[in-house]
Amino acid sequence: MRQNDMNSLWCLIEDNYNVRNNRKYEGMFAQGNGYVSTRGVFEEGASDNSKDEEYMNKAGFVTVQGAKETKFKCGTYVPGITGNHPHLNEEIINLPWFLEFKVWFDNECLDMEKCSIDDYKRWLDFRDGTLNREFTWNTLSGAQVKMEYRRFLDRNIKNLSSQEINIKIVKGSGEVYIEAGIDGNVKTNGYNHFRDLKCLNIENRYIGLEVVTDNQNKICEASYIKCDKGFEWNIEKRENHILYTSRKAVEEGNKFVIRKYTAITTDRDLEVGNVSPLDRALNVIYKVEKESAENIYERHAKIWEERWEDSDILIEGDDKSQLAVRFSIYHLIRSCIEDDPRVAICAKGYAGEGYYGRYFWDTEIYMLPFYIYTNPKAARNLIKFRYNTLEGAKENAKRYGYKGARYPWESSIKGDEECPLWQFADNEVHITADIIFALWHYYSATNDYEFMVNYGVEMMVESSRYWVTRVDKNKNGGYDLLGVMGPDEYTPFTKNSAYTNRMVKFNLNKTVEFINVLSAMDRKNFNKIRNKLNLIDEELELFREISSKLTIPYNKERKLVLQSEDFESFADIDLDEIWTDRNRYFVQFISQDKMYRSKCIKQADVLALMMLFPQEFTNEEIKNAYEYYEPITTHDSSLSPATHATIAAWLGKEDEAVRFFNKAANVDLSLETDGAAEGIHIANSGGLWQLIVHGFAGVKSSVLEDTLKVQPKLPKHWDKLQFSITWKSKRYKITINKDRSYSIEEKLN
Amino acid sequence: MRQNDMNSLWCLIEDNYNVRNNRKYEGMFAQGNGYVSTRGVFEEGASDNSKDEEYMNKAGFVTVQGAKETKFKCGTYVPGITGNHPHLNEEIINLPWFLEFKVWFDNECLDMEKCSIDDYKRWLDFRDGTLNREFTWNTLSGAQVKMEYRRFLDRNIKNLSSQEINIKIVKGSGEVYIEAGIDGNVKTNGYNHFRDLKCLNIENRYIGLEVVTDNQNKICEASYIKCDKGFEWNIEKRENHILYTSRKAVEEGNKFVIRKYTAITTDRDLEVGNVSPLDRALNVIYKVEKESAENIYERHAKIWEERWEDSDILIEGDDKSQLAVRFSIYHLIRSCIEDDPRVAICAKGYAGEGYYGRYFWDTEIYMLPFYIYTNPKAARNLIKFRYNTLEGAKENAKRYGYKGARYPWESSIKGDEECPLWQFADNEVHITADIIFALWHYYSATNDYEFMVNYGVEMMVESSRYWVTRVDKNKNGGYDLLGVMGPDEYTPFTKNSAYTNRMVKFNLNKTVEFINVLSAMDRKNFNKIRNKLNLIDEELELFREISSKLTIPYNKERKLVLQSEDFESFADIDLDEIWTDRNRYFVQFISQDKMYRSKCIKQADVLALMMLFPQEFTNEEIKNAYEYYEPITTHDSSLSPATHATIAAWLGKEDEAVRFFNKAANVDLSLETDGAAEGIHIANSGGLWQLIVHGFAGVKSSVLEDTLKVQPKLPKHWDKLQFSITWKSKRYKITINKDRSYSIEEKLN
Repeated sequence: MRQNDMNSLWCLIEDNYNVRNNRKYEGMFAQGNGYVSTRGVFEEGASDNSKDEEYMNKAGFVTVQGAKETKFKCGTYVPGITGNHPHLNEEIINLPWFLEFKVWFDNECLDMEKCSIDDYKRWLDFRDGTLNREFTWNTLSGAQVKMEYRRFLDRNIKNLSSQEINIKIVKGSGEVYIEAGIDGNVKTNGYNHFRDLKCLNIENRYIGLEVVTDNQNKICEASYIKCDKGFEWNIEKRENHILYTSRKAVEEGNKFVIRKYTAITTDRDLEVGNVSPLDRALNVIYKVEKESAENIYERHAKIWEERWEDSDILIEGDDKSQLAVRFSIYHLIRSCIEDDPRVAICAKGYAGEGYYGRYFWDTEIYMLPFYIYTNPKAARNLIKFRYNTLEGAKENAKRYGYKGARYPWESSIKGDEECPLWQFADNEVHITADIIFALWHYYSATNDYEFMVNYGVEMMVESSRYWVTRVDKNKNGGYDLLGVMGPDEYTPFTKNSAYTNRMVKFNLNKTVEFINVLSAMDRKNFNKIRNKLNLIDEELELFREISSKLTIPYNKERKLVLQSEDFESFADIDLDEIWTDRNRYFVQFISQDKMYRSKCIKQADVLALMMLFPQEFTNEEIKNAYEYYEPITTHDSSLSPATHATIAAWLGKEDEAVRFFNKAANVDLSLETDGAAEGIHIANSGGLWQLIVHGFAGVKSSVLEDTLKVQPKLPKHWDKLQFSITWKSKRYKITINKDRSYSIEEKLN
Repeated sequence: MRQNDMNSLWCLIEDNYNVRNNRKYEGMFAQGNGYVSTRGVFEEGASDNSKDEEYMNKAGFVTVQGAKETKFKCGTYVPGITGNHPHLNEEIINLPWFLEFKVWFDNECLDMEKCSIDDYKRWLDFRDGTLNREFTWNTLSGAQVKMEYRRFLDRNIKNLSSQEINIKIVKGSGEVYIEAGIDGNVKTNGYNHFRDLKCLNIENRYIGLEVVTDNQNKICEASYIKCDKGFEWNIEKRENHILYTSRKAVEEGNKFVIRKYTAITTDRDLEVGNVSPLDRALNVIYKVEKESAENIYERHAKIWEERWEDSDILIEGDDKSQLAVRFSIYHLIRSCIEDDPRVAICAKGYAGEGYYGRYFWDTEIYMLPFYIYTNPKAARNLIKFRYNTLEGAKENAKRYGYKGARYPWESSIKGDEECPLWQFADNEVHITADIIFALWHYYSATNDYEFMVNYGVEMMVESSRYWVTRVDKNKNGGYDLLGVMGPDEYTPFTKNSAYTNRMVKFNLNKTVEFINVLSAMDRKNFNKIRNKLNLIDEELELFREISSKLTIPYNKERKLVLQSEDFESFADIDLDEIWTDRNRYFVQFISQDKMYRSKCIKQADVLALMMLFPQEFTNEEIKNAYEYYEPITTHDSSLSPATHATIAAWLGKEDEAVRFFNKAANVDLSLETDGAAEGIHIANSGGLWQLIVHGFAGVKSSVLEDTLKVQPKLPKHWDKLQFSITWKSKRYKITINKDRSYSIEEKLN
């Protein structure tokens, strides 16, 4: 493994342990390999804190939803492994904890908070996804022990976790006692999803834990521990817990390298075949037992290197921003299950239990562009996930009494609605159009016609059918979308939301456009699809008519796009009077009822619309919208700052662009707020990428332009910006210089 | 007790047992004595149905909230004894079941569903609140046993329940075995509120059960069983269950009268003093042990007789309506805790667990007039309850960020908000003004100036202060009430609801009016109140200004009072197309999102306003409102039919008035719907009384008129209508004849 190479532009470093920040760092230090994600938990946990307290979490308002405060929170998530929480609906299950490695010296238990620790340092290396920790432990018995930890989730052997622990007795002697196992005493949001749990001692050499979840998924974790010399390992079974233990007398100068390998498998894995999770886990373990640690690491690190080759954004002249952007990209790479179209990326990037591991519009509108332009295969699978959940969306439409497909606001892995709060589930209908927008975005960037014919067109037609039944005819012969919540979640019930209506028009228009292309150019597929979907000409006519009769509310006098037709009738409030501490969320200072009836905005709404369709608005209209809405926008949502920064950059408001950039860059890195405690704000990570690429570099999205174009708006203090873009199957390297001169070079393999 | 006097105008009779209707009859047959209420459960329960299943009830939409379906549901409620359900908030606790009396004959367990039963009859006698049952049991062993049961909750000794069971061996011989006890294995909405439970064998003669609830209330139930001859009683303890058992050989012709007395006491009783619940219960039992059953009954029955003297409505020419109206009045008398201002009447009249025993606007707007005009002392205590919870209402306002007092939509006994669904809790703000309206109604009918000075004025000022902070100033210099749900619960989020705005104006106006009277006529109290409430002149000026600037939305062209300013912008829908079975609730045929954005109404809203302020609208406006709103009103709420009947009667639409009267009369009596299964729709009972008095008799409320006035609109098929009214401390008998001639006679004591 890479040692002691703490490159400050590539590593997130914690050099001072403070228990108050522990859960935040656990989120920031989350690791993942495109199969499993784990939180950056200390191997030894905290000696006085339980990780399986049973409690009941009630669904609260989405912004202020409080998770139970604990000192640490172990987290092991395999996307797709979900269960039903009795009050929160479907949630991703926190699996048994396999990173456990506890140390005692002369009966003193190692604990970062309670022991005397010097030279503490922990860092996550983005280049290879390795989490490292080093410190010196001054034991109560007077000895000095140097501890070093490294661990990674293998990108090559995706079911594998590797841990290496170095123990060096710097001074004194004594007795070391170690416990290292797999612990099934884990709850998710206070609830136990494990129905059947077996602890296995395998040949007195390996340990294993088999679990059957409440959804009948079978999970296996099996570990093998290796130490070159000296330690003898016993295997011990405790309640829902199996572990190696070892006790050894040590002396000054002794050095030990201990490796713990764990294989994680489930019956849902793509490559499962007929082999049981246990056998598959053991096969992994048998294999790595014979391999050198160096070889295992090298193959893993090579894949990370490839990802960075396609995804890195180089910023010269602003190290802090450089690090923050790489932090975001790291998490985007880490959390994406590239090859599995049965799952997407949950709202907290599988780095915590916030939002319960569910899928929102975040994926399509905020994260997807990153994958479209850096890893189109991954983007394809993310869109394919929505095709795979189309049946759920159709069921959802039916349950509401509508036709076609209505994507759920908080999607389960099957496409069922899991949102426990009706105002979001019922009214944030834009999600369905967002998905079609994203589909078209992917298609326009990749020309993946085969995907459109086999999957996309069906999503387009079924979603359009939903809109036909969701609109209401008004007395002027037009159509309205009533009872709608747009992106701004602080106005729950509006008439004709500008964002929503525009996206619905896009959905309907592109459906008609693509069917027309098929009809004209590809009769075979046209006929196949027409038969499969029972598509009739009158439907297309209706799609066209509704699209043309949905309006975008607009105040002509003020040249202002209105967030909704009734927005001006909401109450004026004085934000400064109410919001007395801007370091906290606005929602904490106002009652929901007052917020819901007032002109206060959670996040970019009209500006989110303008970010997607800038060519449809004059510069003056964009400026008017920015200047009207921004002062009443609270940015309580992490989806807000990056969009504001992008628009500000376009408008040449550089100071504001930089201010919002910094806000976006610090959403998870900040220790002042809850930050990453419950997971990574992964949509913001995608937003930050878009802000740089679409905002500061001014790359036009493929929805807007057929050819790759750049229109730099670089902040003055940046010396250079460089990144790669995949565009219609070709890869380009874009370099922008301080003077805003730039080059676009094709990259050849 | 009154025997075999099944007067069909005074008794609700069930003469055919059907298990499907069992829970509905349990609700209809609920008994109560102004202290405790019990459901009309068979003494033996059902042999194959548990009464303490543990399950988790989630809060659902208010109309479709499903309680667990069981064959029977024992229910014992002492208002004020509440606990916290982990998901439903505060609820009234279902107390240990003391009516148990199980019989076996030759080891065959008596069960109404499974045994061979002839001549079954059960009836509730409204005159004395006695529940009776008789039948013949053809036992499997060939014997014939005649069983008779009577029971009542004593109105004289309010902690006492009396049961009498007659067993007559008509044919054959065999062995009778009896179990009669107090069973603490009872859950409330699936949840166990009992923290500490003791079963007591007292002197081998009495049995007792002491319970401490999760709210630390102490409850005691103690029983004594008496049988003239033959039965010897053992006392047996089981888990959370104490009981008498007895076994005896019996022969043809044997007759036994068994009496079971139970005393129910709590540490919250008004007369508790320093005596423990157990000692108080035993004192009751010791006393009744020495009394004759006849004496106990007579004293009890006399009080019921007095209540009927003040409350009865006589209808000649329509026996079915006569019975239905007495049924409603019975439950109004039964459920009111006349002398205890620490509780009001819950939405299900303490006859079930629906609405969790909480207090809504139902009390003030629907039930209170009955008490104001028949039992002003009870009415005073109901209003006093709102004074006693004023602190809770002030806390509630504060929690939302408002000043003054904001009454909760679903009130706990302390005035806290218990409604788990925000759209009701946050937006149905009219409750606060409803309470002030009710206060003024009580005051105008009784001239209880002392109440106003000591309690009422404080409620008025604090509620007015709330409104000052709840209104929003609009750009025309006026005031709006935005984000409001009026009485119609199918439009959750409206602007300037006509009903709400008018009630708020009333609230503000009457506050100013009363303070002005005080200021002019009663300087001493004026100064006292001004100091206590820190009242300043500017406040009064603001109350007046806001009241004058709140508008009642109105369409001038159509001469139509609009339910809300934005009502016309809601979607038109075709009720007939959606609502394919009008015997079921409309809400079951439409998704909430479509319902919330469409012109479909749950219950009287503009008509409810017109019922309270008829003099402010022309006949044409009332007619327009009726004809516009009624066709789009679903009457999904039981609060709707009586109001519609009243307005229809006023408009001379007799057929519709009678149709809605019948609907109201059958809300609980119907076996086609769920009816009374989860309790009595007690607001509808009050609505039915108002419909007859204000609608068919045309009595003007004291808010509108200073003197008692009658304006009969009797249905043609009624020969005579007669009832009593208390008006400014005098009692009147009003008689209306078929030809609509009438008399108002003062009643002298």
